[in-house]
Amino acid sequence: MTTLVFGHKSPDTDSTGSPIIWAWYLNEIKGETAKPVLLGEPNTEAAFVLTHWGLDKPEIISGVDAGTPVVIVDTNNPAELPADINSADIRAIIDHHKLVGGLETKGPIDIRIEPLACTATIMHKMIGDDLAQAPKAIKGAMLSCILSDTLEFRSPTTTQEDMAIAHALADDLGVDLSAYASQMFEAKSDVSAFSDAELLRMDSKEYTVDGKDFRVSVLETTAPKLVLDRKDSLMASMVDVAKEDGADQVLLFVVDILNEEATLLVPNDLVKTVAEKSFGATVTGDTVVLPGIMSRKKQIIPNLKV
Amino acid sequence: MTTLVFGHKSPDTDSTGSPIIWAWYLNEIKGETAKPVLLGEPNTEAAFVLTHWGLDKPEIISGVDAGTPVVIVDTNNPAELPADINSADIRAIIDHHKLVGGLETKGPIDIRIEPLACTATIMHKMIGDDLAQAPKAIKGAMLSCILSDTLEFRSPTTTQEDMAIAHALADDLGVDLSAYASQMFEAKSDVSAFSDAELLRMDSKEYTVDGKDFRVSVLETTAPKLVLDRKDSLMASMVDVAKEDGADQVLLFVVDILNEEATLLVPNDLVKTVAEKSFGATVTGDTVVLPGIMSRKKQIIPNLKV
Repeated sequence: MTTLVFGHKSPDTDSTGSPIIWAWYLNEIKGETAKPVLLGEPNTEAAFVLTHWGLDKPEIISGVDAGTPVVIVDTNNPAELPADINSADIRAIIDHHKLVGGLETKGPIDIRIEPLACTATIMHKMIGDDLAQAPKAIKGAMLSCILSDTLEFRSPTTTQEDMAIAHALADDLGVDLSAYASQMFEAKSDVSAFSDAELLRMDSKEYTVDGKDFRVSVLETTAPKLVLDRKDSLMASMVDVAKEDGADQVLLFVVDILNEEATLLVPNDLVKTVAEKSFGATVTGDTVVLPGIMSRKKQIIPNLKV
Repeated sequence: MTTLVFGHKSPDTDSTGSPIIWAWYLNEIKGETAKPVLLGEPNTEAAFVLTHWGLDKPEIISGVDAGTPVVIVDTNNPAELPADINSADIRAIIDHHKLVGGLETKGPIDIRIEPLACTATIMHKMIGDDLAQAPKAIKGAMLSCILSDTLEFRSPTTTQEDMAIAHALADDLGVDLSAYASQMFEAKSDVSAFSDAELLRMDSKEYTVDGKDFRVSVLETTAPKLVLDRKDSLMASMVDVAKEDGADQVLLFVVDILNEEATLLVPNDLVKTVAEKSFGATVTGDTVVLPGIMSRKKQIIPNLKV
């Protein structure tokens, strides 16, 4: 039976690339039969990465049949996975996020979670010397995942291991790391094709703080103006998105990759309170700049207060 | 701040030895400050191992203060840990059990779970070449953990990795593996000092099956007669233990290590049904022999039906 390898819903570069990397490893090195799949359309950066390295876009699935062998990468959060995930035969989890709880396995399985910036970095360590057998596209996917998740080493989630591995991969591939990262971020910044609701859900995770359910959305971009010019319609759309998704509020952080700051949209008093209590911000209008804030995982979620 | 390293409540050899091994690694190799502790009195086998290798018995703690850095080994189940575990600063989890859910961490941490027989086997892999610097007692603890959890390779949880590492450790230490395992199992089989209630709780885990809460207790012994001679008072004691612990029923499996079978005590119709549905057993009296059953994790829990 083919093992399906997938990351989280609304796949970014790491959740698109890491399943491809791991399925390669299982197929070519471990002699198993595995297939990378996606839980949604990849974002524009991930789509650029696939095209750039000549990788096929994995099939998009909406659920898994009971008993299907699966490997979950880049998340351990059931909310970011198919509703029927616990009925699958979960074979392994490789992730770099905090332990959320909720996934259950019938027996002991391989779980490897490390506080690194990127799933692909952990895979690089696990694959070890066997990576020499990987085609360029697999190494290119790995490099792309690390550059994406670290925002080219600007994010505070970046570790020495992520950096060292990315530089080694770029050298091996003969890639100009900064030039390539710029191409990736440009692809990510092109949000013109997306509706407001799509933008709000593109890179979004649900968290509950003091009984309030938040959809914490992040847009990483080198061109924040393209998003902020749409702030009025984005704020209007937040009401519908929150309602449809059963959340109390959408929080949209527009992360300016190059200037290393985030702008939070402030549509109402609830978000104003969140901005003040969580980040000590002084809010005067319907947006507030949060200097240095780039990481949902490391800076936004741990500080979120209501 | 000193990092506390501990395993599960009612510590067996793996939950006693693995914290000692990992605290050694953190202190001597990683340059951190760590201390092994226990969540209860070690069982007779674990106590024998400590004495045999000249290891100090770790301090027994009953809870952890909020914010205390901790490393959890040999379990990921909150029910087997202090009630306030999620208020601690959980730094890492090293385990070989199925993912239960319930532990939460504030940020991403190191989690390493592998389907091996023993936590110490995973630690052996993680410590790698640095193990050469370990004193004999640390290697002896490692060997003891593996022999205990695999019942000297008789348990179906045993993997090639567990076996290979145990043999390499025994060679390195100049230990006669079988003779030493026999000493350990003899120590474990001496249950004369324990009350019935203590025996029922000695190696016991709680599981819910179809709404029924079971305390699934296992006694691994080379002298099952010593336990089975006490079956009447053990069955009487089950009622009180279940009540005190908020369970519906205690299931006691007396595992005969040498004959590779378990005897289940059958005090009532509920347990009779469990024996029949779970193991296809034919129950005629107040005990039933289950040939080949040695592992709670691999054979008892996955099959438990009501």
